[in-house]
Amino acid sequence: MIRFECDYLEGAAPQILEAIAQANYEQNPGYGCDPHTERACELIREACKTKDIAVCFVVGGTQANLTVIGAALKNYQGVIAPVTSHINTHEAGAIELTGHKVISVSSPDGKIRPEQVEKRCKAYTADAHRTHLVQPGMVYISQTTEVGTLYTKAEVKALHDVCKKYGLLLFLDGARLGYAVESPGNDLKLEDLPHLCDVFTIGGTKQGALFGEAAVIVDEELKREFPYHIKQRGALLAKGWLLGIQYETLFTDNLYFRLARHAADLAVKMHKGFKEAGFDFLHNHETNQQLPIFTQTQFDRLKEKGFYFDHFADMKDGRIVTRFCTSWATDPANVDKLLEAIKDL
Amino acid sequence: MIRFECDYLEGAAPQILEAIAQANYEQNPGYGCDPHTERACELIREACKTKDIAVCFVVGGTQANLTVIGAALKNYQGVIAPVTSHINTHEAGAIELTGHKVISVSSPDGKIRPEQVEKRCKAYTADAHRTHLVQPGMVYISQTTEVGTLYTKAEVKALHDVCKKYGLLLFLDGARLGYAVESPGNDLKLEDLPHLCDVFTIGGTKQGALFGEAAVIVDEELKREFPYHIKQRGALLAKGWLLGIQYETLFTDNLYFRLARHAADLAVKMHKGFKEAGFDFLHNHETNQQLPIFTQTQFDRLKEKGFYFDHFADMKDGRIVTRFCTSWATDPANVDKLLEAIKDL
Amino acid sequence: MIRFECDYLEGAAPQILEAIAQANYEQNPGYGCDPHTERACELIREACKTKDIAVCFVVGGTQANLTVIGAALKNYQGVIAPVTSHINTHEAGAIELTGHKVISVSSPDGKIRPEQVEKRCKAYTADAHRTHLVQPGMVYISQTTEVGTLYTKAEVKALHDVCKKYGLLLFLDGARLGYAVESPGNDLKLEDLPHLCDVFTIGGTKQGALFGEAAVIVDEELKREFPYHIKQRGALLAKGWLLGIQYETLFTDNLYFRLARHAADLAVKMHKGFKEAGFDFLHNHETNQQLPIFTQTQFDRLKEKGFYFDHFADMKDGRIVTRFCTSWATDPANVDKLLEAIKDL
Amino acid sequence: MIRFECDYLEGAAPQILEAIAQANYEQNPGYGCDPHTERACELIREACKTKDIAVCFVVGGTQANLTVIGAALKNYQGVIAPVTSHINTHEAGAIELTGHKVISVSSPDGKIRPEQVEKRCKAYTADAHRTHLVQPGMVYISQTTEVGTLYTKAEVKALHDVCKKYGLLLFLDGARLGYAVESPGNDLKLEDLPHLCDVFTIGGTKQGALFGEAAVIVDEELKREFPYHIKQRGALLAKGWLLGIQYETLFTDNLYFRLARHAADLAVKMHKGFKEAGFDFLHNHETNQQLPIFTQTQFDRLKEKGFYFDHFADMKDGRIVTRFCTSWATDPANVDKLLEAIKDL
Repeated sequence: MIRFECDYLEGAAPQILEAIAQANYEQNPGYGCDPHTERACELIREACKTKDIAVCFVVGGTQANLTVIGAALKNYQGVIAPVTSHINTHEAGAIELTGHKVISVSSPDGKIRPEQVEKRCKAYTADAHRTHLVQPGMVYISQTTEVGTLYTKAEVKALHDVCKKYGLLLFLDGARLGYAVESPGNDLKLEDLPHLCDVFTIGGTKQGALFGEAAVIVDEELKREFPYHIKQRGALLAKGWLLGIQYETLFTDNLYFRLARHAADLAVKMHKGFKEAGFDFLHNHETNQQLPIFTQTQFDRLKEKGFYFDHFADMKDGRIVTRFCTSWATDPANVDKLLEAIKDL
Repeated sequence: MIRFECDYLEGAAPQILEAIAQANYEQNPGYGCDPHTERACELIREACKTKDIAVCFVVGGTQANLTVIGAALKNYQGVIAPVTSHINTHEAGAIELTGHKVISVSSPDGKIRPEQVEKRCKAYTADAHRTHLVQPGMVYISQTTEVGTLYTKAEVKALHDVCKKYGLLLFLDGARLGYAVESPGNDLKLEDLPHLCDVFTIGGTKQGALFGEAAVIVDEELKREFPYHIKQRGALLAKGWLLGIQYETLFTDNLYFRLARHAADLAVKMHKGFKEAGFDFLHNHETNQQLPIFTQTQFDRLKEKGFYFDHFADMKDGRIVTRFCTSWATDPANVDKLLEAIKDL
Repeated sequence: MIRFECDYLEGAAPQILEAIAQANYEQNPGYGCDPHTERACELIREACKTKDIAVCFVVGGTQANLTVIGAALKNYQGVIAPVTSHINTHEAGAIELTGHKVISVSSPDGKIRPEQVEKRCKAYTADAHRTHLVQPGMVYISQTTEVGTLYTKAEVKALHDVCKKYGLLLFLDGARLGYAVESPGNDLKLEDLPHLCDVFTIGGTKQGALFGEAAVIVDEELKREFPYHIKQRGALLAKGWLLGIQYETLFTDNLYFRLARHAADLAVKMHKGFKEAGFDFLHNHETNQQLPIFTQTQFDRLKEKGFYFDHFADMKDGRIVTRFCTSWATDPANVDKLLEAIKDL
Repeated sequence: MIRFECDYLEGAAPQILEAIAQANYEQNPGYGCDPHTERACELIREACKTKDIAVCFVVGGTQANLTVIGAALKNYQGVIAPVTSHINTHEAGAIELTGHKVISVSSPDGKIRPEQVEKRCKAYTADAHRTHLVQPGMVYISQTTEVGTLYTKAEVKALHDVCKKYGLLLFLDGARLGYAVESPGNDLKLEDLPHLCDVFTIGGTKQGALFGEAAVIVDEELKREFPYHIKQRGALLAKGWLLGIQYETLFTDNLYFRLARHAADLAVKMHKGFKEAGFDFLHNHETNQQLPIFTQTQFDRLKEKGFYFDHFADMKDGRIVTRFCTSWATDPANVDKLLEAIKDL
């Protein structure tokens, strides 16, 4: 079987396995107080071209999201997020369990608009009984989004501006940040983020690490307090150097972006292939999550041919939105096989 | 100034004030372990025509909602509710603070349909990765709804049926239950509720008491556990007999429904008056929350004439949805003055 | 039966019932935005001799405690409190439900010492792995304490000093503040508290109101945010003017302290009576909660004579610590009857 | 520097690194739905000699504890635990953040006695106002304990009996379960646990894995619900097969216990060495956490000689309780060097 259903099917870049094996009998102090972690933070600061950020590592994405949001918000605040966002749909109510409402706003393309934020904040501020409402405290966006779309730098800047205007934090979930950066047409670089977000993550799990998300914190108060929240949420890895060593490796010799580029190039190829084979897409983009639309027959036939992919959503006309992902580990030969296979479904 | 903006502007029915004064120097044990509370529970059981319910009293509506929902749901469950529901809009995130998602569903008329519940539950059950989703655990409805509409008995029964089919609890918020029961066209009686809901409330605050909501519990597990939750939520009144004595009074000689009828009759009159004066309504019903639509000029002029009412929502065409409430305490003369005043706005 | 088991057996001072009856058909806006509440706040500011406080009203004591503590602490902080404190023993885990540890410290007399706070804070600060510990964020004390003892002004000042040294808030639970102030030997006045605490309550439930606790907030951040927390915790009374009118009455003509004085005087008499009858006390003080120690025989005999009182604790020698409370409503004749009855148990 | 301060200084057993490398380009479905995880569960069931358990894997210890306790308890319940227990001292309030009180009981040797549980439960049950108390819902113990002591099988059985008598769950934290099992004098085997506990963990992090705790669930309700809680707590590893493959390796050819035996043997040696050198111990046992007592001079001198170890606690006489741990990775030569070094401190 050839699997394309997600971008975390394989282990890690060989450089990472090697580095972990290499360090196996070092005696590293626990909880991220080790030289690898220190070096990883330093390398990320360099990649972000600023010293003015704190970097903390946690194991997974839901963990990162709930720890960031639970740490940043006051009890009575909620987080504005697209209705399709991961925190609103696929985290089992993890954000609500921290006590906060996900204030979902409509989003045909997985992105949120500054006007939506402004409208909500204006309504809140104008309401004489606003103590009865959930106070907007943060905006959550993902790059790439959960449907594979991309924010432009100008779009993120506009969101950041409206957040600052109303005193909200902007949180960018970068579980697929590398894939976004290396996508054609992207103009939002890693080094832009410290100027445009209050906190963001640099995903490892989907981008060449065994596991791990780097939380990059710009906001001063959150910087000071975040380590306490990590421990209290059960998100502090005992052998924190395992996270350190992975990010140390990823941010040496630009490995993180080189791995991402591999996935990005294959995504372009895959997109072209689906297009040429006559498939529609839910969203017409070239990032590493391709969402072509299949008839039930096409869907079944491709499965029969030994391909595994995601049933992403149902169209009202009965067709099926599928998801095919490329990743740092995708074998180009498998993409070729796929594009061959879809020609006659 | 004559106020119509809500139905809790005044104190309590004189019979209640009298009963409290009468009992003032009794020595009643605390926390609802007193004869008045016992008697009140008994009277409510009689009014519900069943012995098979537990009755607990709390002070307020948000308190009742968060205690019921926080008690009934497992951590990973959420409550399905209309997007316009009180718990989704006007409780400051109280439900989320208990850790639970309000799974809001669209509702043009403030009511939820069985199909909406079924669709959500089916999607949940069908999802192989349903541990990543919020599990629907309860359906929340209000009678009357927050926009003054009414569920029929058949509608509640259909909701109850789908809830049972998927293992959900049905919670009916009866903050305005009396006003609903006494409204023209209503066919859902108090005595029906123990057969159609797992838990419901009988509102006091808006219906002649100084304060208080009676939580009526049908579900066996919730019955056993609810008292613990009440205390832990800070919802256990020290002088619990104050709640007992009020409900004892309200359910003696049918006072609760006689008070409600007063409001219901004035609502019919008010509705007719607005209609005759040419006003549109957001929802065309005759319950105690009337939502006529005003132009800005009409709105301002009526304010100038000394009437106070609620700015409920904005229409896209620039007009304003207002809210005028009647209650057990509404002076019929004031309704006459209002209907006179709106004739030439 | 004559009951002494607690100080909230009766309703309210007649002036309060009258005031409520008087205002019954006023149309007061909800949620504490009414003239009575405004006036009550003003009167409390006058009684505290400072304009620099915010005053908010909630219905009950556990509600006040969980709202204050849940509002004041960061997630990873806990509240230091005597092991005998109400929040540690009789609030059903309400504080923990808000997410915070009650860091209990030993206390033979119900009071906490500055040295205990300092020791804990020093240990926390000195610990290199302090992110693994609960950070002390607040000290909770009660006046009078749960065992009827009293803090002196110097003691509270010393606690406040150590709190400021380590960045903690000091919260004084004044559910029985009036009874404390009017007790012989007390030197801690209401007007001292804004200078010595960050937040404190002025209890109504036990001191002549039907219900109600006034939360007086000195800390600037807590002042701004507290109203949001009140609503979210379900602690915002719809007819907030009911709280306003009660405190308005209590703080007019010094009624609050006159009612307290009645209880305080009877407590002195009761204490003397028990002493003369040869009873030991768990704590030898003259406040309104008397804790005389009974043999089982004495305990049973007094019950048989028609007196009801609290079984407070068990002594290791088999004797029983009892609790007899006086209150604003205690009939002096009943105290006489009690003191007569205990002479020959 | 030679480090002994904890038992998670090194990476993983080479077999584990190999297995991970071997599987690196397999395409494994996420979230533990993979053959390695399935096989690991099967192997653990075999090692436990029962089919009647569910096995789930999470990354870390605090995560395991908060997920288990948060899943098992009702809101109003607390967990009884020794005052020295990890959840009471070193998890930053993680348990309280899930809403539950850690009901700490005194424990001079890190263990809890059935009498302590019974006393607490009896008092709870006997209290007429028990809705005001925290209901005991679980007992938490660790094997080995946080101070290196061991429960006998009879002791755990007695605790289990009292738990069943009062309806509590018994949770055994086995972060160091292997080291316990292989310690001299231990009579509590892995296969005993499903009969004596409702839920327990088999620690990986400290016992040869890179990371990971296996939660073994005996209680039927907890079995069904636990996967939902794992996801909601952010504890579901995307590449769950990383946990599966590690436990698959550890439970093949008895590796888990062979690794533990290495540490256990060195612990015996270390204990003997400290004893012969004249050191007292906080607790005189032979498990892998040795707690010898040092004077400040001895402490400083050993540090100067290049050894790193834990400052565990302070004695009242000014001496220091230290902690030296052995693990699966401890180099016997380093133990020799240590025992040589302590001869002339």
